Amino acid sequence: MPHTDDLRALTDRIRRLEDEAEIRRLIAAYGPLVDHGDGDATAALWTEDGRYDVDGGSFADPNAIADMVRSAPHQNLIRNGCAHFLGPVHVTVDGNEAVAVCYSLLLERRDEQHLVRRASANRWELRSTARGWRVVVRTNRVLDGNPDAHALIAGL
Amino acid sequence: MPHTDDLRALTDRIRRLEDEAEIRRLIAAYGPLVDHGDGDATAALWTEDGRYDVDGGSFADPNAIADMVRSAPHQNLIRNGCAHFLGPVHVTVDGNEAVAVCYSLLLERRDEQHLVRRASANRWELRSTARGWRVVVRTNRVLDGNPDAHALIAGL
Amino acid sequence: MPHTDDLRALTDRIRRLEDEAEIRRLIAAYGPLVDHGDGDATAALWTEDGRYDVDGGSFADPNAIADMVRSAPHQNLIRNGCAHFLGPVHVTVDGNEAVAVCYSLLLERRDEQHLVRRASANRWELRSTARGWRVVVRTNRVLDGNPDAHALIAGL
Repeated sequence: MPHTDDLRALTDRIRRLEDEAEIRRLIAAYGPLVDHGDGDATAALWTEDGRYDVDGGSFADPNAIADMVRSAPHQNLIRNGCAHFLGPVHVTVDGNEAVAVCYSLLLERRDEQHLVRRASANRWELRSTARGWRVVVRTNRVLDGNPDAHALIAGL
Repeated sequence: MPHTDDLRALTDRIRRLEDEAEIRRLIAAYGPLVDHGDGDATAALWTEDGRYDVDGGSFADPNAIADMVRSAPHQNLIRNGCAHFLGPVHVTVDGNEAVAVCYSLLLERRDEQHLVRRASANRWELRSTARGWRVVVRTNRVLDGNPDAHALIAGL
Repeated sequence: MPHTDDLRALTDRIRRLEDEAEIRRLIAAYGPLVDHGDGDATAALWTEDGRYDVDGGSFADPNAIADMVRSAPHQNLIRNGCAHFLGPVHVTVDGNEAVAVCYSLLLERRDEQHLVRRASANRWELRSTARGWRVVVRTNRVLDGNPDAHALIAGL
């Protein structure tokens, strides 16, 4: 006859799989939300104290992220045709925190093709909140030989 | 001592994870099947009443999808070198139905590189059948600023 | 009241999901490790008798794989800016062995973009070891119309 301990161990294993699936799903929403130009929904992927650190700058909180999505340069990118295309996500969950590493491509429509304007390394630090998993810090750097990009992908 | 109710709840959670995994696996087969030129196996990803709605047309049933894969233009694409390359899939399961959203790239071999001929938004509506999860409707639109593409990725 | 048999069946289902997740995570580490230039960590993805079979050659064991990563051509690629970018992985687990099929892109920095130098088909044969899942044989071929590439993706 099974012990409650067995059930608890199984529940922990299921919970771990669910955490990883939820984190991958959260990150998979980023591209469509930002390419649709939905500033509020994009910002809601982050915690209230979350930030997004990119090449040449930083968005210090979710409002700044939403403003970036709504900005004229970003909206022009959308009108011209763009895709924020992600690669497979390598997730490491540790209790209520997690780190996810993945690549991203920014594609822009030009003539009869899409150009890959940049391939970047991404490191997402996440936290489990009352609203589910959310991004605390996302950092990305273009893969152009820059050592900062390497710091994000080292040690997997 | 555990109750059967606990086991049932765990079983439901496992089933949900399995459903999502199976759907992602089904969609991951699309690129290799269509780039290998296997019309029957590609068509078998769909339900018998399934359809595939693309820019500028629609394949009204699995036979039409198989015919597209076997057609001279598609076979020429394969001979020249191509990849139907997908991004991460955002799946939402609701009982025996599901919606999956992802991006796709069509790459064509040209000189010493592959050109990205288009990046598209994809929405897959799926159903759980006696043969497993299958595609009922796949709709895709190129991300060229076209509002139709945005309709597919809104609301994640 | 639940039977131990039920728990065993659930445990098997969880184990299957964990196996698939671990294999996808292992493969997701390849790009970052090889683009960071970490020969030892890249080689450690393989079993001790593992090999990597590529267009025009073969790396016969993990030491040869580590040497390739440390080689001047590969390190020059990294300095110039590159991304080994993978697509979704289609995994089939059979006990302690598994086969995974996916696509990969090699992107190189050039002027203000990344060029896709090649899109390739990949077949990974894996084994569950005392250190976890590891690669026994990885075979890839560029998708340029070459029938060898098709052999890797047929029969999903």
